[in-house]
Formats: sequence, structure tokens, C-alpha cells
Amino acid sequence: MTTAATPGSAREVKRHKWWGWGLDDVTFRWDNKPAFAPFAYDKIGIDLPSLPPAVEPQLSDFEVPASILPGDVRARLVEVLGEDNVATDDEYRVVHSFGRSVRDLYRVRTGDFVRLVDAVVYPGTEEEVQRVLEIVLDADLVLIPYGGGSCISGSVTPDVDEKRPVVTLNLGRMRRVLSIDDTAGLAVVEAGVYGPDLEEQLNADGWTLGHFPDSFAYSTLGGWTATRSTGMQSDKYGDIADIVRGLHLVHPRGVLRIKGLPSQSTGPSLREIVVGSEGRLGVITQVTVQVHRLAPERQVIAYMFPDWEHGIRTMHAITRNTDIHTTFARLSDGDETAFSLSMLKEPTTLKSKVTATVQDKLFAYLASKGWDTERGMCIGYVCFEGSKEAVARQQGVVKKIVKANDGVSLGAGAGKIYDQKKFDTPYLRDFLLDYGVFGDVSETAAPWSRLNEVHAEVTAAVHRALDEIGRPGFVFCHMSHSYHSGACLYFTFAFPFTDDDRALAEYDTVKRTMQQAFIDHGATLSHHHAVGTEHQPWMEQDVTAVGVSILQDLFTTSDPGRNLNPGKIVTP
Amino acid sequence: MTTAATPGSAREVKRHKWWGWGLDDVTFRWDNKPAFAPFAYDKIGIDLPSLPPAVEPQLSDFEVPASILPGDVRARLVEVLGEDNVATDDEYRVVHSFGRSVRDLYRVRTGDFVRLVDAVVYPGTEEEVQRVLEIVLDADLVLIPYGGGSCISGSVTPDVDEKRPVVTLNLGRMRRVLSIDDTAGLAVVEAGVYGPDLEEQLNADGWTLGHFPDSFAYSTLGGWTATRSTGMQSDKYGDIADIVRGLHLVHPRGVLRIKGLPSQSTGPSLREIVVGSEGRLGVITQVTVQVHRLAPERQVIAYMFPDWEHGIRTMHAITRNTDIHTTFARLSDGDETAFSLSMLKEPTTLKSKVTATVQDKLFAYLASKGWDTERGMCIGYVCFEGSKEAVARQQGVVKKIVKANDGVSLGAGAGKIYDQKKFDTPYLRDFLLDYGVFGDVSETAAPWSRLNEVHAEVTAAVHRALDEIGRPGFVFCHMSHSYHSGACLYFTFAFPFTDDDRALAEYDTVKRTMQQAFIDHGATLSHHHAVGTEHQPWMEQDVTAVGVSILQDLFTTSDPGRNLNPGKIVTP
Repeated sequence: MTTAATPGSAREVKRHKWWGWGLDDVTFRWDNKPAFAPFAYDKIGIDLPSLPPAVEPQLSDFEVPASILPGDVRARLVEVLGEDNVATDDEYRVVHSFGRSVRDLYRVRTGDFVRLVDAVVYPGTEEEVQRVLEIVLDADLVLIPYGGGSCISGSVTPDVDEKRPVVTLNLGRMRRVLSIDDTAGLAVVEAGVYGPDLEEQLNADGWTLGHFPDSFAYSTLGGWTATRSTGMQSDKYGDIADIVRGLHLVHPRGVLRIKGLPSQSTGPSLREIVVGSEGRLGVITQVTVQVHRLAPERQVIAYMFPDWEHGIRTMHAITRNTDIHTTFARLSDGDETAFSLSMLKEPTTLKSKVTATVQDKLFAYLASKGWDTERGMCIGYVCFEGSKEAVARQQGVVKKIVKANDGVSLGAGAGKIYDQKKFDTPYLRDFLLDYGVFGDVSETAAPWSRLNEVHAEVTAAVHRALDEIGRPGFVFCHMSHSYHSGACLYFTFAFPFTDDDRALAEYDTVKRTMQQAFIDHGATLSHHHAVGTEHQPWMEQDVTAVGVSILQDLFTTSDPGRNLNPGKIVTP
Repeated sequence: MTTAATPGSAREVKRHKWWGWGLDDVTFRWDNKPAFAPFAYDKIGIDLPSLPPAVEPQLSDFEVPASILPGDVRARLVEVLGEDNVATDDEYRVVHSFGRSVRDLYRVRTGDFVRLVDAVVYPGTEEEVQRVLEIVLDADLVLIPYGGGSCISGSVTPDVDEKRPVVTLNLGRMRRVLSIDDTAGLAVVEAGVYGPDLEEQLNADGWTLGHFPDSFAYSTLGGWTATRSTGMQSDKYGDIADIVRGLHLVHPRGVLRIKGLPSQSTGPSLREIVVGSEGRLGVITQVTVQVHRLAPERQVIAYMFPDWEHGIRTMHAITRNTDIHTTFARLSDGDETAFSLSMLKEPTTLKSKVTATVQDKLFAYLASKGWDTERGMCIGYVCFEGSKEAVARQQGVVKKIVKANDGVSLGAGAGKIYDQKKFDTPYLRDFLLDYGVFGDVSETAAPWSRLNEVHAEVTAAVHRALDEIGRPGFVFCHMSHSYHSGACLYFTFAFPFTDDDRALAEYDTVKRTMQQAFIDHGATLSHHHAVGTEHQPWMEQDVTAVGVSILQDLFTTSDPGRNLNPGKIVTP
């Protein structure tokens, strides 16, 4: 194993720009995507070419309230961590006071700083985390563990009514792969490591975690664990709950250590109690994860289907076929397919021009066959990994299934597009906000038997909600993350909000309608976006009142003073 | 779906004989297994042919203390369930007061009835379970949920110091498959169904659960769920925690209903809190499980390896090969292999005589190659399921891996033996007890990197413990249940105990030594046999003091009066 650099200072830990996703110098561009502006105009009435370029928000335009962290508490934190690792300056406090939900982004961009965290601390070791927690409990502070700050459910956002000083604990200095067990395929890793950093360390020894959520670039192993994350390749590598085999949790009563083991029969699963606990039981400092050898061969093949139902039937048949073991299988509905096509860059090279021509001809042919190539047809992707022979064989089986369900193969060239753009989507939200548009996602999981119903009913519900608030807008969806019994449906929606204090109320109307539709049609309130505060109102409907009360007991007994990320998942 | 018969009366629910495993008319026979008596004489000094036939214990030889259930409480239970479903007669109370651990079997056979349950109730519906729980809480009784009574960790045995009346709740009347979702592959099933009954109902529609623990014939879906069971075919079908997607738990505050969903991100997993809870949170009444289509082709192939290390290396290579998806992979160590060979029946048909001759010649050949065919060589089994082509292909890949690791294939004929005898092992324990011998099992899971260490150290520890108590005896082991990161090691041990009050102390010495060796070498205290009371002393070493305290809080807040199976998993 390569030895990763020792933890750096807090200033070396990467962070989002204060008002949006990721790095300052990356933004979404529409001007090199000829179909994008017409799409936006058609769907939400925004005429991009006619609008002036967006103006970047300036933090100096807003008043940032002072930290209320008492001086003596700050001194104690500095004593443990050093001055460099206790940040109380404005930008750090603003960045760490918000996740990257639409609500948080709207609030941060409009300077809604009614409640910011009062300090951001950067421990370098588990022992330092323990000492921070002691100070927090002793001084009756609130502690919010923070990974990459990518969450869209409010899990890292302080309660605006919180009167006690709030300290956010950024784990970014704890980023090392501590050991890899080559025989067991288990790696012990500090929880604060970001996705790309972790993959780089593992890849250096021929390993991969295989966990690639959309937030990959700005999320961490500890954050994935605390929020029950799932990566795009979960068909093969599993949800984070499957990947995590052991962990350390700094808890008010000491360190909970779960050994990295394949399986255990030792009562209710403590591992599965900590996974998804969003900081309410303590701070996850170390995780033992399954790692896999990098696959010798990898292929992503794109397919096109006449409509959603044909696509879902195909994905179901692929999942049921015991000779196929996909890395991922994904299907966009008609509107998401149209959106994807609008995101294609203008062909500039000879090769891409040829591809575009071939595509035009294919679409013309499909239209002549009666397909609705404007809105109805659905693109799907299937990823195969393994030996060259196994990849080719499974591809062959899938090809037959696709054909039997009236689909056509677009080949590996179109499949490559999927891999290239997969982590860019979050930047699109900032771009839309620049133009007064909320663009957001909400996702669920349901049994195979209800995927068509959930897809149709949620889509209809969003349109009803848009009618209710009187705004234009759109919603589209893809199916991803196949399991034996069902799959995830991932909805994206956007609408131009009314630019006054009605904006968040409009958002709430649409978001609430979607969540309620999930529940009403037998789906879960969240497949991999956690609960936080955004999804909390549906917890009782999802897991019953008894379930909520068991979780309340779990948190209250561990943390009777409500010092650990209070108000998240359930209240109190 | 076929409609299963409506629940019958309590008298129709099958049960163990009062003093041992399973039905009265099934017993283990050694007289048709020519190598068994010499094996027993060699290993534990018991000369079977010289001993008189065992005398069956008679319940009338013992004094059975009267039930302390108050008459008015009994009347209330009868009002809810009917007279037929409230049993207070001696035999029912004795059967339900013990699991099938060595300790329980020894106690029941010696008439150690110091504390029996005071009544056995048989509800027919979830609502009746709720009403029973209300009566239990109202009258401050103790309630012990009971599935098949097969557990060997003490989970259904009342605490001998319990002063309150104890009621055992037998779920055997709740045995119906309520619905099968053909598209999702999900079945909703009442929790009290026994293994064979469930498979029969599912098979009728072409489905299987694929869950086949050794206890299959005398264990239930609810019991598997409450104890984190794992079946032999878990490589393909998963542990019960994977199989269970939803459930109903009758809890003191109402019914917890977890929907049958592929995956959720809704805080700590309530499903994984109930799985393994051994009755401490309430009564599991209904479970939504993944079901699979019966495989068109199934093959079990047997292999022989020169020693344990070669075998483990092979099993590891099979698990790592992404082109192979086994249904199970299993390896016996040298002593278990020798034991298995001693269990072969005397060949009586021409075919079995030919097979025996071929086997003799093969072993002679292996011995000539330098193999230790008496104690060293290790038999392995791999099961493949799927299409004919997939089974053949994977078999071919495994054949190459076996050959590369100096193993030989014994073919499908030897593999068939495995399937035939798989559920008979529990009867052997009663047989051994007839002759004053404790025969027991203890199992664990560890990472692949530590399997050889755990195997060697646990084996050595048992021999040290036998020396300590001054008894002859043996221990052997198999590896089963492969996971990405490790596997289960399943140890069987036997020794003739001193036939006086030292017997259980001798047992404790051996059992404790094994459990401690598991922990000391990085393995878990139990892979699929739960905690109960037998494994409780190692909980803190396994999941740390913080982990134990979290479980204590979980149980105490749900059940402040300690009415629900108190003393199991952790105390209080």
C-alpha cells in the first residue's frame, strides 16, 4: 500500500465555494450545447440567449452575524486542535452552515444567515474527536459532523432556533487509507476522505471501492456512511450499508468499535444502527470497507426503447436473468432522454460529426417505425465488468433481451458519454439558480411491480403541484440501482420560482407533493438521500409511529442533552 | 398462488419430542454405518457394540412443577384465544421451556425442571398477538416468543430466577403465505411457518426462499428473523437479514410495520434493529421476504484437497473469481472429512458397491501420491444453480481452480450425498447424549485472511480444554457461507462427560474456550446462532461496552418492565 500523506492543515481540506457546488472555477456552460437553450425555453420559458450573464454572488454584500462561541470554549478547542484547526472566520462558517439542497443554496445566495455555525473544527485523529466531543458535552454546545457538505436533506444545517453555540466538525484532515487486507479485500480508512482521494489511494494498489454517487467529488466516506449513500454501481458493489463492514463511532460513552467482519449474528445490528445515523449518535471516525480488484474489462452499452414500459420490462428481465450480473442498469424516461439529448455538445471533431449524423439517421428510422423520438423514447445504459469473455457473453444475453423487448442497441460509443458526464450534474443547479430556476432531485425505491405506477403518479403529481403554484416547469426520471425486488426511481424537476418570499413556499409545495406521492404509492421517502430535516415529515408514514418512537429512544438515550446534530431524522 | 389451509388448532402445530430433537420416531442409526463405531471408539472411547440399547426418557419419571399462571390471567388468555390455544399441561410446558442446546437437552433429560414456562399460547392472528401482549404487560408476566424451538443459544429458555409467571407464545398457527408479488419476487408470509411448510407453499408456484439452515425442519421464518439465521445456500440467497425486506413487529407501543422494499435511506435501519432482536422488542408476526424462481439446473460437485490450507486457498479463489456465482461453497477439515466418511452407509446396492470400490481405489491412489487420506485430506462441495449452460461453464472454471490448487474432483455423485443428509445432523446429538456424550457445534465468521489462524487456534484451544477437564474428545470444522470479505467456520466437538453434576461445568469449560478463541483471533462470537444467554458473556468483547450499552438502551426503552424475553442478548 502506498502511504498517503499525513493529514494536512484545515486550509488544505477542499471545500465548496460559499454560495454553490464545488470549486469556484467550474460552472455549467450552455453555449456549446445547441439543443439546451431551446429545451429550457420550451420547458420553463427561460430565454437564455436574451439574458445577461449571471453575476456571481459576493459574500461582502451580506451581513454575517458574529460567532457566539464563548472565548474560553474556543481556547479549549484550540488547546486540543491548534489554532489552525479552529476556524471562526465568516467564509468557513457560511460554507459549513449549509448543505447543497435547493433550500440551502437559495438561503445562502440570498444571505439568509439567521443562524450560522459558530466554529468549524478540524480534528486530525480519533482521539482529538473524542476530546472535542468532551468539550461539546461539557459546555453544552451543539456538534454537527460534516463530510463533504453535499447533502440535500438538511443534515448539516443548524436549526435556526438553536440558541446554544454550534460547532461543525469537519473530518477532512482524516483522509488516510490506514491498511488494506489483500486477502480479505477489506480496507480500514479514516472517515473524512473524499471520494476521488480514496479511489486514488486504493487504485494505486489495484483496488476500488466501487462507490460512485453523483456527489462523489464532494462527499466523503464518513458522510456516505452517516447518510446511507448508494453509488451508481451499486448493482455490483452494493449500497454503502453493504460496503461498510466495520466502523468506529465516537459516542458520548466512549468509542463504539465494530470489527470488519463478513456477517454476524449478535443481536440487532449495531453497524446498521450507525449507518444512516446522521451524526445523532456520535462521530464516525473510521470505516472498514470492502474493496474489489479493478475489473480487467468494463463496458457501458447504451440502448433505446420505444417507451418507459418497454424499458422497465427490459431492466426487470435483465435483473431476473441469473446469467447476468450488471455493474449498473439505468433507464431514463422520455423526458429525461430528451433532456440528455439536449445536453449533447455541438459536434466539432470529424468523429463526433459522423456520430451525430448516424444518430440523426437512426432517430429518423425509429420515427418512421412509429416511435415518438421527441418525448417518448427512452435511453438505457447497462454496465458490465469482469473478464473480457464474461463481459462479451453477458452483453450478448442482454442484446437478446433488449431485442425481444423492441429495443435497439446504440453501442459502446453512446455508453461512453454516460461515464464522462456523470459527476457534473450538481453544477447545473447553481446555473439554474443564476436564472431564477429551482432545479432539484428527489428519489425513492419501490418494488418492480410498482415502478410504472410510481413513475406515472409522481410525474402527474408534480404537474398538479406546478399548476397549483401557477408556474411552468418539468419533471423527468430515471430508474437506477437494481435489486432483486425493485429499483430506485430518481426524479429531477425544475421550475422558475417567483422571485420574492414566495420562492421557498413554491418549492415546498412541489417537493411535498412528490414525497407524499412516493408514500401513497408504496415507495420509500428516500432511497439514498437520507432524512435530515427535508424528509422528516414523512418518517411516521414510512416507518410507522412505533418506528419513529424507537429511533427517538435510540437518540435520546445516547444523547440526553440533544448535543449531537439535534433535530435530524426525527425530533426530538 | 395456492391458498394455504387456514390455521389449525394448537394440537396440529408440530413440535419436538419433549426430551430431544424433532419427531419421536426418527433417531440416528449407527448399525448401518460400518465405519461409525470404530470412529467413535477411536475418538471418544465409546464402544457402541458393547453397550445396551438406549432407554428412552419417560416424563412420568420426573416431577413437573405446577404452573403459577394466575387463574384470572388464564381466563383472559382463553377469552382471546380459546381454550384449545392456551396450553398448561406438563408436556407442552416442558417442550417449550427448552431450546435444543446441549445445556437445554441435558437439563430436560435429567428432569431439571426448576423453572418451566407456565403456559403456552397459540394466537392465530396479529391482532390476537397484540391482545396477548396487552394482557402480559397488564399482568406483569414474561413473554417468550417461540418459533420452532431449535435454537442452541438459550433464546427461548426462561431465566431460572424469574419469579413472575412466564408465557411462551408459539406462532405455529400463523403459517400462511399471504401473497406473492410475482414481478417483485416478494412474498408476505406469517412468521410462524416452518421451513418445509413454507418451501412447499412457495414451490407450488415455482418459487423458493432458498433459506436452508441445518435446523430447517424445526425452525420458522419468525425464528430465523429473530435470531439472524443463515441458510446453507446463503452465497446465492443471502443471510436472513438480506432475505427479509419488510416485517411486522407487535411492540408494546403498537405494531411496527416495515414495508417490503429493496433498499431505504431513512435513518438507522429499523429492519436491522428487529432482525436479531430475539423477542426483546416484541413479537414478529409477518415477514416480507425475497423469493426466487426455482433454478432450472442445480449441481453439487464434491472435491478433495490434500489439506485444509489448499482447500481454503481454493474456496478463496472461487469467491474472488467474478465469473463464478456459487450457491454454496463448503470445505470440511481433515477430521470432519474423516467423520463424514465414517457416516457413509454400508453399500448394499450394486451401484453403491461400485462407487465404494472406485472410492477405495481413488484414496489408495491419493495415498500413493503422499496425501494423508486418514486425517489430512479435506472434502469440499460447491453448488451451482442457473441455466444448464451457466452451471456447466462455472463448473469448468472451478475445475481449473481446483486443479491449480492440487485438488481433485469427486464429481456430482459424491455431491449428491451432501444434499441427502443435510438436515439429519441434529438427531446425532440426542444419540450421543444417550451414551453420555456431549456433541455440540459453535460457529463464527472471520475475514479470509484469518480463517487458517482461527481454524488452527480454535482447534488447539478445544484440545487444551479437553486436557484441562481430563476427557477424551474431538473437534472438527467446516468452512461455509462465503462472502466477499470472509466466511463462516463451523466447529463440531464431542466428548463423554462425567455423569454427575460436573457434566455442565465440563461443557462450559470447552464451550467458553472456543468462544474466547473466536474473539481472541479477530472472529465474531456468532455468525448465525444468535446470542441468547450462551453467547452473552462475550458481547462486550465483540461489540465493545458502548455497543452493549446502546442495545441495553434499545431494549429498556421499548420494554421498561422487562416483560419481553428478559435477559437475552444483553442484561438487563
